[in-house]
Amino acid sequence: MSKFFSKKHGGLVAYTPGEQPKDRGYVKLNTNESPFPPSPFVSAAVQAGANGLNLYCDPENTRVNTAIANYYGVQKNQVITGNGSDEILNYAVCAFCDDTSPLVFADITYGFYPVFAKINAVPTKIIPLKEDFSIDVEAFCAEQGTVVIANPNAPTGICLSLETIEKIVAAHKNSVVIIDEAYVDFGGESAVKLVEKYENLLVVQTFSKSRSLAGGRLGFGIANEKIIADLNTVKYSLNPYNVNTLTQLAGEASMQDKGYFEKNVATVIANREYTVAKLEEMGFEVLPSKANFVFARKSGLDGGEWYVRLKEKGVLVRHFTSERIKDFNRVTIGTKEQMDAFLKATKEILQGE
Amino acid sequence: MSKFFSKKHGGLVAYTPGEQPKDRGYVKLNTNESPFPPSPFVSAAVQAGANGLNLYCDPENTRVNTAIANYYGVQKNQVITGNGSDEILNYAVCAFCDDTSPLVFADITYGFYPVFAKINAVPTKIIPLKEDFSIDVEAFCAEQGTVVIANPNAPTGICLSLETIEKIVAAHKNSVVIIDEAYVDFGGESAVKLVEKYENLLVVQTFSKSRSLAGGRLGFGIANEKIIADLNTVKYSLNPYNVNTLTQLAGEASMQDKGYFEKNVATVIANREYTVAKLEEMGFEVLPSKANFVFARKSGLDGGEWYVRLKEKGVLVRHFTSERIKDFNRVTIGTKEQMDAFLKATKEILQGE
Repeated sequence: MSKFFSKKHGGLVAYTPGEQPKDRGYVKLNTNESPFPPSPFVSAAVQAGANGLNLYCDPENTRVNTAIANYYGVQKNQVITGNGSDEILNYAVCAFCDDTSPLVFADITYGFYPVFAKINAVPTKIIPLKEDFSIDVEAFCAEQGTVVIANPNAPTGICLSLETIEKIVAAHKNSVVIIDEAYVDFGGESAVKLVEKYENLLVVQTFSKSRSLAGGRLGFGIANEKIIADLNTVKYSLNPYNVNTLTQLAGEASMQDKGYFEKNVATVIANREYTVAKLEEMGFEVLPSKANFVFARKSGLDGGEWYVRLKEKGVLVRHFTSERIKDFNRVTIGTKEQMDAFLKATKEILQGE
Repeated sequence: MSKFFSKKHGGLVAYTPGEQPKDRGYVKLNTNESPFPPSPFVSAAVQAGANGLNLYCDPENTRVNTAIANYYGVQKNQVITGNGSDEILNYAVCAFCDDTSPLVFADITYGFYPVFAKINAVPTKIIPLKEDFSIDVEAFCAEQGTVVIANPNAPTGICLSLETIEKIVAAHKNSVVIIDEAYVDFGGESAVKLVEKYENLLVVQTFSKSRSLAGGRLGFGIANEKIIADLNTVKYSLNPYNVNTLTQLAGEASMQDKGYFEKNVATVIANREYTVAKLEEMGFEVLPSKANFVFARKSGLDGGEWYVRLKEKGVLVRHFTSERIKDFNRVTIGTKEQMDAFLKATKEILQGE
């Protein structure tokens, strides 16, 4: 830290992204990426766009926003795109949270929420998950403030029904409820269909998982047009050209290849069910996942030890050290071959190999 | 605005990027883009990267940062890259400004500086340009706070010497001085060579102008490694994967095609000198520019009228309405053909056509 770093940031602990080791090849199941390349439409669109990069990208992100709006049956002014969904989440915390509207989130959820609160200097209210690691819906309904819920939740994978989401949204008429649906395509039901009914609902999604564009950085929000206008005020105060030309083209192309998207999602879901069955056969407890990862533990197996031994065997998963979940590991669902490598390595570890 | 927008943002006026009209084709000289496509190396690199977009980009931006470090003869940990240089500027305001260190900038300069200050809730100190539109160096030296100077300045194009920059940096031992060198490649002298000597100097540059990558969104900062570490703390608190894979590849490729870069810069400089001479022949006053634009006015010609008439004739330049500069227009330097179109249209306007 330099002597110039503002004292106002005292206690700021930045987010730690999943490790990207370069020392050797890994079966990489630690950052919830898609194992499949993006749609061939994406490659074609990107190649066509490269030569025009001397001109600024469209600051209104018109074409990709239109593609998203058409896909979800909403208006273009109900959509905002960002440099990853993290950017949209930060815009929302910046726009809607303050001393009178703290950010409300679960104790076990996406680790970036408290960081967004801290960097924006807004207070937080943390609501513990219930004993079974599900969201405490009653507590969320009772707590006033700007609510953010990952649905399905990360790293648990547990998903709330649309009825339950609606109950939470309806309980916060005077504040925004953000439903972070990074993983919703793998079996959850999106709250986008509630946007027409609730002016306080912001649904956030990403192209990083189900649409194979983690490296392209593209996320989006869908909400009432006034919410979107507020987020645009923040965008135009931070980075008007926030989504580069190639990513806008990639996102648009990706949205137009629905068949490819649906096939990949179906494969991931099938591989998830396969992995869950195999883990349960080995005596693991696996939380019920609607995401492209599973969260598992086994009585008598130390979570940190399991993670380290897997890494030694060339399989990378994600381990969290916080007390309630330190016995678990989060395992991204990849190809059948990747999951077999993970399952084989785990079996060996259980056998003391 | 929604009823949820935080009251803390009262008075926030977002930045207005240059217009990107879609109603017709224009000779587009309003946003200081390069008229030349990016290096062929860039297209090749982007095409090679598209298929791997399912994996996250490197959050450390290793390859592009290394290319920049090598180009400027600094260490990799003295470099940070961002989603455009606007992102780096925002990181810096977030990191270093607070109630005890206001953001200090000129009255006529890049219009985003006051917006960054407002969205980060930090106070500002505004130092008027002198009568000749040059930076008031003595006033900058005397004013304490986090200084940001565009050098060359925008929209004037006027450039301070390296000796003058050093004087300002040396006068602020206890705060950061940001030199925003978006346009430095067109005739200015970069302050990068002062980074080793001054721990409080942050030099910011962009790939948007001289490197033909405005649509790719890539900017960078070079500073003492502790300054860079602070900026990284902000980055990892806002958007760890801030530069997408394709832009990282494009930036690296661009840095490696030095010949192409130098040729394009030389052409722009030649076209600028040509444009200045022709404007002066027509009786215009042109501020001495070291940028890829000129800032010009003519006694008896209303700046707004000149802008509007040019637009009617299919030539887009940028007009600013603030009192001191409302008689000027900022004209990007494009190809010889573009400049001839601009000069011809201007001549017609002067002749009442």
